[in-house]
Amino acid sequence: MRIARFSIDGNVAFGAVEGEGPDGLVLDIIKGIPYGDFELSGTKVPLSKVRLLPPVLPNKVVAIGRNYAEHAKELGNEVPEVPVAFFKPTTSVIGPGDSIEYPSFSNELHHEAELAVVIGRMCREVPRERVKDVIFGYTCANDVTARDAQQREKQWARAKGFDTSCPLGPWVETDLDPTDLTIQATVNGEQRQLGRTADMIRSIEDLVVHITEAMTLLPGDVILTGTPAGVGPLNVGDEVAVTIEGIGTLTNKVIKRG
Amino acid sequence: MRIARFSIDGNVAFGAVEGEGPDGLVLDIIKGIPYGDFELSGTKVPLSKVRLLPPVLPNKVVAIGRNYAEHAKELGNEVPEVPVAFFKPTTSVIGPGDSIEYPSFSNELHHEAELAVVIGRMCREVPRERVKDVIFGYTCANDVTARDAQQREKQWARAKGFDTSCPLGPWVETDLDPTDLTIQATVNGEQRQLGRTADMIRSIEDLVVHITEAMTLLPGDVILTGTPAGVGPLNVGDEVAVTIEGIGTLTNKVIKRG
Repeated sequence: MRIARFSIDGNVAFGAVEGEGPDGLVLDIIKGIPYGDFELSGTKVPLSKVRLLPPVLPNKVVAIGRNYAEHAKELGNEVPEVPVAFFKPTTSVIGPGDSIEYPSFSNELHHEAELAVVIGRMCREVPRERVKDVIFGYTCANDVTARDAQQREKQWARAKGFDTSCPLGPWVETDLDPTDLTIQATVNGEQRQLGRTADMIRSIEDLVVHITEAMTLLPGDVILTGTPAGVGPLNVGDEVAVTIEGIGTLTNKVIKRG
Repeated sequence: MRIARFSIDGNVAFGAVEGEGPDGLVLDIIKGIPYGDFELSGTKVPLSKVRLLPPVLPNKVVAIGRNYAEHAKELGNEVPEVPVAFFKPTTSVIGPGDSIEYPSFSNELHHEAELAVVIGRMCREVPRERVKDVIFGYTCANDVTARDAQQREKQWARAKGFDTSCPLGPWVETDLDPTDLTIQATVNGEQRQLGRTADMIRSIEDLVVHITEAMTLLPGDVILTGTPAGVGPLNVGDEVAVTIEGIGTLTNKVIKRG
């Protein structure tokens, strides 16, 4: 099932995305929140009439750096011996169609297309064989990075945590085998990144075990699983799209902040 | 004014801490939340009858590394050219008297006594002369660190973000000049860290400008301003206390997780 979060006439709701009808995709509004058991209301609205929001409101986003060997290499980095884990704050999260604001402290903004894992249950010290039970689903993410600031600043709070640096969407796909999906980024329609999730150095199971060895994850928390090779510059006016097989496309435009 | 957050009989409230009476400190319960204008209810409860909670529920904690020269030196680090900013997640926050759980992935847990700045207003790109207007007050923090994991893992999400790694409290002091306060840590009553906030490399103004150049801060967000020299090991059973002049003492015990 594909679950979107949206606003319509000032109200915010979750909805199940249903197949193409004569007027395009339709959302069946969910009663309450979709973590755990939930019911569809049967009340339907056309997707074209709503504004899609970030499909989750995470308490935290834990991101993993250098999880594809070809990408580590393109930036001159070694494959790390332990996963490189960092946080993106909730204030960085935006939804599909929202604008990425070019940060004032950078002259080298990069896209990073990533598969995002959405957590469905509060969990800590998850055993490998239980990882599937704590995952709600998957969405597309762009780990937008001020590359120059990342190189200057030893920790990445600003370089990867500035406002609008974490586009998520367009919805969460709950029925998906994430082990071998194509993941790509285009800028203004031109392909920049193309990879397969099968090339992750650490699997989703590895990452959930590693992260929850240290910290509790809450429903709606997000894990970004790293980006494949092909990262490159974003400029004001660019439209960047992250597409993951079986999920969909997350599109955002880069604007000048002001 | 000193503002605490507490629970009593299952209810959570903020209260103004009032001076020593015959039965010790008393809390005057605040109507609603203390950001912006607020009223005291006049209903008073003795501090001894409540459980103090973390004095704020931050949306994010932004922490600064290596902000005292003597501390950078004791760990063999250079004074950084730009502030080292990283996040501690909300799941790491605990209150006064709560237990620090020794993390399973570390054998070298360290205390780091820090002055914490509590933000009172939503803000972004704060000019230096307006920094005082966005600060709600100050509290004590312990930036508990798995030093061995910090050295092994290039980004510090686990080493400084594990559950219970961010004790805050005992309350927020809203009337305080933070520029030259003694800050100390004791372990089992023995002094380990002693410094003065005057020795910060970057001032609180510098840090707020630097952080808000990139990201929005929300009411209740917290900035940890770095630790003075004298960091050292914590073991199971230890009681660690952070005392800052004009604020008070934040005490936590280290326990084995289980």
